[in-house]
Amino acid sequence: MHPVLIVISGPSGVGKDTVVKSILDSDPSIHFVVTATSRPPRPSEINGVDYFFYSQEKFEKMIADGEFLEYAVVHDNYKGVPKTQIRQALNSGKDVIMRVDPQGAATLKTLIPEATFIFLTADSLEVLAERLRNRKTESGDVFDLRLQIAQKELARIKEFDYLVINREGQINRTVEQILAIVQAEKCRVNREPITL
Amino acid sequence: MHPVLIVISGPSGVGKDTVVKSILDSDPSIHFVVTATSRPPRPSEINGVDYFFYSQEKFEKMIADGEFLEYAVVHDNYKGVPKTQIRQALNSGKDVIMRVDPQGAATLKTLIPEATFIFLTADSLEVLAERLRNRKTESGDVFDLRLQIAQKELARIKEFDYLVINREGQINRTVEQILAIVQAEKCRVNREPITL
Repeated sequence: MHPVLIVISGPSGVGKDTVVKSILDSDPSIHFVVTATSRPPRPSEINGVDYFFYSQEKFEKMIADGEFLEYAVVHDNYKGVPKTQIRQALNSGKDVIMRVDPQGAATLKTLIPEATFIFLTADSLEVLAERLRNRKTESGDVFDLRLQIAQKELARIKEFDYLVINREGQINRTVEQILAIVQAEKCRVNREPITL
Repeated sequence: MHPVLIVISGPSGVGKDTVVKSILDSDPSIHFVVTATSRPPRPSEINGVDYFFYSQEKFEKMIADGEFLEYAVVHDNYKGVPKTQIRQALNSGKDVIMRVDPQGAATLKTLIPEATFIFLTADSLEVLAERLRNRKTESGDVFDLRLQIAQKELARIKEFDYLVINREGQINRTVEQILAIVQAEKCRVNREPITL
């Protein structure tokens, strides 16, 4: 059975980070894709865990060599997903999981159509709004903007393979459903191996 | 989430009966489709559990009324799958499971393309042959014939959605994989409700 590449996406506030963390706790054999960045590490950040920290020169060399699945410039720094990491994990038979925003998922789908795309959503837009509102870091304006974006992102669900509802207080069920999807995908008859 | 209709198939000797029984033990909320027959019940058989026993007249009336998903004549008796039963289970939100031979699965796929088709196979054709050989009911000729049929049936795998290997002594794993498929299918974005 070929390993699978799972892309987890969904609107801001839906709990992607927590869900991915719980998946990795439940099944440590899954490889989580670590993003690379050219910005310097913050004191608490560990290279290879939080990000891969590359110099700007190294990053640009890697871009030139086509070594990123995708990359972007964020606040004057590069941010990208190195192909080698995913390739090595898949070659060693490991399932791979990535967390991206819905826009990034759309790009990934054109690059790796054989991957499995899971859209994570909340019980309702109201619940999502409530979660965003409780983030103390968001000002009123940012909150309104994020909610507008979330509404647009929900329209993207049909581009995904699976929809999982991350219900309030039921993260174990969310994780169980995603692990069931991983297991089922491995049994699919017409699944193509992933090429990067 | 719409309920799913799962069709379990695979060659003779692969363990379809045992696997289906274990699935129902693990998740009693799943409805198992009971076949109808016009032959008289054997002493140990219970109406509605082993088969639905209908008179020939009733069976023919039901055929005329289009009440069977499919039916066949076996040893001068009718055998068929009543639609009402499946419809009622699905309408009440229950997942439904059926066990058919690969030929029957091909017919079902044209009738209910929205169903989920799982092909059950053994570790290898050798293991399958061994299991058939151990069935004391089979004479040498019947054994050879069954093995030939099994080889042909394996070629049908590509017509199915999922392939599950029922490994020797690992029935729990087989059941776990099938239940994962049920759970995953319920999360599929583009899944159509089943109409009969």
